[in-house]
Amino acid sequence: MTSLGTPEFFTDDIRVKPDLDAHGALGDFGWYSIGAILWSKNYNLPTSVTALPGTIKNSDGVILSFSASLHYNQPDHTTAIIHGSFLAFTCTNLCISATKGSVYLQDFIIPVKEDSAEFEFTLGAKFVDLHIGWNVKPEKVVVGCEVAQEVSMVQEIGRIVGEIKRGREPERKWPEISRKTHIVLDAVRKSIDLDCETVYLTEESSV
Amino acid sequence: MTSLGTPEFFTDDIRVKPDLDAHGALGDFGWYSIGAILWSKNYNLPTSVTALPGTIKNSDGVILSFSASLHYNQPDHTTAIIHGSFLAFTCTNLCISATKGSVYLQDFIIPVKEDSAEFEFTLGAKFVDLHIGWNVKPEKVVVGCEVAQEVSMVQEIGRIVGEIKRGREPERKWPEISRKTHIVLDAVRKSIDLDCETVYLTEESSV
Repeated sequence: MTSLGTPEFFTDDIRVKPDLDAHGALGDFGWYSIGAILWSKNYNLPTSVTALPGTIKNSDGVILSFSASLHYNQPDHTTAIIHGSFLAFTCTNLCISATKGSVYLQDFIIPVKEDSAEFEFTLGAKFVDLHIGWNVKPEKVVVGCEVAQEVSMVQEIGRIVGEIKRGREPERKWPEISRKTHIVLDAVRKSIDLDCETVYLTEESSV
Repeated sequence: MTSLGTPEFFTDDIRVKPDLDAHGALGDFGWYSIGAILWSKNYNLPTSVTALPGTIKNSDGVILSFSASLHYNQPDHTTAIIHGSFLAFTCTNLCISATKGSVYLQDFIIPVKEDSAEFEFTLGAKFVDLHIGWNVKPEKVVVGCEVAQEVSMVQEIGRIVGEIKRGREPERKWPEISRKTHIVLDAVRKSIDLDCETVYLTEESSV
């Protein structure tokens, strides 16, 4: 995920200050990208994380651009790549290529428009005889949105607070997702700081 | 790039035989993927190549699935990722995210259909105020194809042979592209064999 900062952004924004959001582009775009990968892997933690070469930092050492690969040993050796940068125009592609099918969407963070979202879905594709085409065409799936995603978020917070007021235990879903996202984010940061050494996550990481 | 082999493929095809196409999925899908990246980088060689964890080989040691990252130090720390596998259904996405824009196409090897090709192009995208959408929508670009790509290839070979017959020097374009593609392919292979150690390409590699 990339989105270009304004000149003011690079001098004034909290996301470029070492004593504020010190993870920079990793803490902002990396968070969303890691969240998307965890979602696609049913919130299982990766086996290991390796930063890729080419991290760019500002003079205070805050990350402005980075790439990393996340690897899952089980069950199927999935590799996921994330890239985050304040130095390029907006690009928020999510490509998932699985054993049987693939999904592609271009606006997994801020939607291109608010009233509907769309993604491309291809299932069981093969080349036809003589390789003159495919047996299935990628399908465009459009999902209507009754409200903007921020409204959904506030509704969900309201629902959770309401449950607690009615005496239920606080819901574990969102804190778990946040914590796992942060575990992976910290591992990426560690690998960046270790000059792209691979960082292994243990089962204990997720406890 | 991935495409699922049939049961016969895994026992009989030359691409799974160590004494025939011994590079397996790397020699087949890796070749096209590396070619696409070299094309997008004006045929400059990457600075380094690193295989990613999770290579799968058959009992004869031929690669059935692999991933690798290619890194360019100059001019802008580009990172490119390739993935090739005989173990997943067809997926041939090419995503290019550059400083000012992005390109996405889903069929960069065998087209979904032969009479036209399409890709998605987004230039200068930014989030609008309040982040309720984007200032530009990704544009679908459709390119008509007079003949199938294999016909174009044969026409090009005919043209080159014709030039030689007319006494010209043999064209250098295609041998250079092939040689560079093979240099990168060999570097990926070396990194896979060295358990994902980074392999650096020197200027001499391209001579």
